[in-house]
Amino acid sequence: MSGKNIFYAQSGGVTAVINASACGVIETARRNRKFGKVLAGRNGIIGALREELIDTSKESVQAIKGLRYTPSGAFGSCRYKLSAVENNRREYERLIEVFRAHEIGYFFYNGGGDSQDTANKVAEFSRAADYPITCIGIPKTVDNDLPLTDCCPGFGSVAKYVAVSTLEAGLDVASMAESSTKVFVLEVMGRHAGWIAAAAGLAGDKRGEPPHVILFPEIAFDQERFLARVKTCVDRYGSCVIVASEGAQYADGRFLADAGSMDAFGHTQLGGVAPTLVDMIRTAHGYKCHWSVADYLQRAARHIASATDVEQAYAVGKAAVEFAAEGRNAVMPIIRRGKGKHYRWSIDEAPLSRVANVERKMPRSYISADGFGITGKAREYLAPLIRGEDYPTFKNGVPVYSRLKNRLVRKKLPAFDIEG
Amino acid sequence: MSGKNIFYAQSGGVTAVINASACGVIETARRNRKFGKVLAGRNGIIGALREELIDTSKESVQAIKGLRYTPSGAFGSCRYKLSAVENNRREYERLIEVFRAHEIGYFFYNGGGDSQDTANKVAEFSRAADYPITCIGIPKTVDNDLPLTDCCPGFGSVAKYVAVSTLEAGLDVASMAESSTKVFVLEVMGRHAGWIAAAAGLAGDKRGEPPHVILFPEIAFDQERFLARVKTCVDRYGSCVIVASEGAQYADGRFLADAGSMDAFGHTQLGGVAPTLVDMIRTAHGYKCHWSVADYLQRAARHIASATDVEQAYAVGKAAVEFAAEGRNAVMPIIRRGKGKHYRWSIDEAPLSRVANVERKMPRSYISADGFGITGKAREYLAPLIRGEDYPTFKNGVPVYSRLKNRLVRKKLPAFDIEG
Repeated sequence: MSGKNIFYAQSGGVTAVINASACGVIETARRNRKFGKVLAGRNGIIGALREELIDTSKESVQAIKGLRYTPSGAFGSCRYKLSAVENNRREYERLIEVFRAHEIGYFFYNGGGDSQDTANKVAEFSRAADYPITCIGIPKTVDNDLPLTDCCPGFGSVAKYVAVSTLEAGLDVASMAESSTKVFVLEVMGRHAGWIAAAAGLAGDKRGEPPHVILFPEIAFDQERFLARVKTCVDRYGSCVIVASEGAQYADGRFLADAGSMDAFGHTQLGGVAPTLVDMIRTAHGYKCHWSVADYLQRAARHIASATDVEQAYAVGKAAVEFAAEGRNAVMPIIRRGKGKHYRWSIDEAPLSRVANVERKMPRSYISADGFGITGKAREYLAPLIRGEDYPTFKNGVPVYSRLKNRLVRKKLPAFDIEG
Repeated sequence: MSGKNIFYAQSGGVTAVINASACGVIETARRNRKFGKVLAGRNGIIGALREELIDTSKESVQAIKGLRYTPSGAFGSCRYKLSAVENNRREYERLIEVFRAHEIGYFFYNGGGDSQDTANKVAEFSRAADYPITCIGIPKTVDNDLPLTDCCPGFGSVAKYVAVSTLEAGLDVASMAESSTKVFVLEVMGRHAGWIAAAAGLAGDKRGEPPHVILFPEIAFDQERFLARVKTCVDRYGSCVIVASEGAQYADGRFLADAGSMDAFGHTQLGGVAPTLVDMIRTAHGYKCHWSVADYLQRAARHIASATDVEQAYAVGKAAVEFAAEGRNAVMPIIRRGKGKHYRWSIDEAPLSRVANVERKMPRSYISADGFGITGKAREYLAPLIRGEDYPTFKNGVPVYSRLKNRLVRKKLPAFDIEG
């Protein structure tokens, strides 16, 4: 007779490796008779509220194994935050009803800071409601902004994508610069912190190698200094490769991407940081420019995922099950970096109460004095996170990604309308 | 006593595999005592005019081997077209002077349609100038628009990048669609022909799989039909993935990317097709949208190159040397597709006079009747071209790409000012 079921949900923006965490959860839970089934929320926590629970026991060993190699959220994710209990008692009660109806004793929430806050609240509420649920957070975010953990699963693969793309595009523009394109701008994610943009710095480590300029949200954008730097790079190196955080902003907090210009129809210009920068450079210097916005491609690029990141994503999923088996509650597995020259890591744990709603900023010491590059210290931190390749299998030229059946278990409760 | 030297130059937009052609040229020429050195133009034909000739014999076996795995143009490329002889006699004469001074008997020009035209003109002019040069074109273009050859080296790798990226981003948006992003737009290259956009169709082949809409330059853009289709896809499949050629245009020939709007400073909006489409969709349907512009990333992405493309790029470089050794002139190696179910290819030759200035369009039969997708015929043509992976070596998480010394041979002639 097996134990209670696990509810697992994916939350927030998906990554190249969040399914590797799901794989770690499901494979580990299947091997432990203490647990019943893993029921996954269809579209994250929304699935719990709507009682749309995916029965992962219907998926083959092969399909679950394939999750390790599949980007995106295989069960659907959501952008839906449970507000505080005092404002939103009915949603918390509903969760407990659903968990009770489906004999769920474990709540695993795979997401960023907001999600860890939710997991913590569910743990507290369930105790008060006399249906105590073991709540384990599983870290995930490309933004690398969770506290306590050395890094966040999802970040290493975006970082690798950005470093590789910067290296490749840098070679391209260098070949064209004599008679054509002299400037290339790559816009990357990171609205509040420059971790992803910083990773572009791993593309080169010698003087004059791209990227020549990195724009971080942490450093106030100064147009004059920026334009002068671009010119210096073109004069000195022949071309200039710029990597800009989408969150690059002026000293007064205005995002470059919302620079406030309007098109001929009166709509706010859709901007993006990259075309805004290119416009400035063309106007000031007349250089031919090219630009790219990586957007979802960077976080979905499982084909160039970091092997280190994949392993860590799997490990935090596995650890969540092990923690639950050991009776721990309201905790999150974290990555701890070993001391010494060679990169080693292990899994440790942190209480959700200390994770929730704390945003880790990039240290100023990771950004060079002039604000346009990364320091040796940043390089030392970032380099191991992108190491190793872990290619998916290909068929007919494209990767074979797992597609699950995603069969829902039979509903037992009346329908429930969610907010929003 | 070895024979005359070969001049090799890269021309136009670079690709993930043009250096594989260079590798094919240099490795093959090094093995054949009929030839002297391979001298590469620094920044393409500009290097010949300026007498900036890179001595590839100074590069190690290992460095040349590495070219097979290195994107971009290792010797520099250029956008510089020699105009007709009657308008531009001094440049042709200069070429011959430089070739004579450096005992160059062979001119290998690695580029698209314009370059093949130049190679043809140089062949004709050199005969008239009584310093006959053997001219061989080497095909290269991501646009896949050269005639006679079944496909163009460079295209297969962009096609693979676009198919893989569409697949990955499609999974991402599908995971987010319930409560967040419903539409994703990927803008790809292709100003005149939709070959690259068509390749996105290889991401899925079942009903409802991304891409849901492809916009080709060949099909006049009809905003109403487009918006209706996007809505149908979101209603039916939950999300809509759109892949748009940069050359997508209205019936009157206006590009969507130059939709003519101005920003607040009176500059033409930088647009891009992707943000323009997103603006339309948001306004009409209110969906949350994300968009990406691949730009140089797509043609520089050697890390996900097509093995078929790499082999063909190498083969046309090798064939150029073999053709020259056999005394052929004013020809270009082409790819010929074998008959039968299984894809096979071989090298054949075409006269430059038949290649020059002919642009191959994508057949209408490759585009579905509704204009938004590809047909089985297109799929049959495209699928083999993206097959196989050919990964570069990685070190510290990023690919190891060849960096050449690029030593110039000593100049023997007075300086020469080029136009431009």
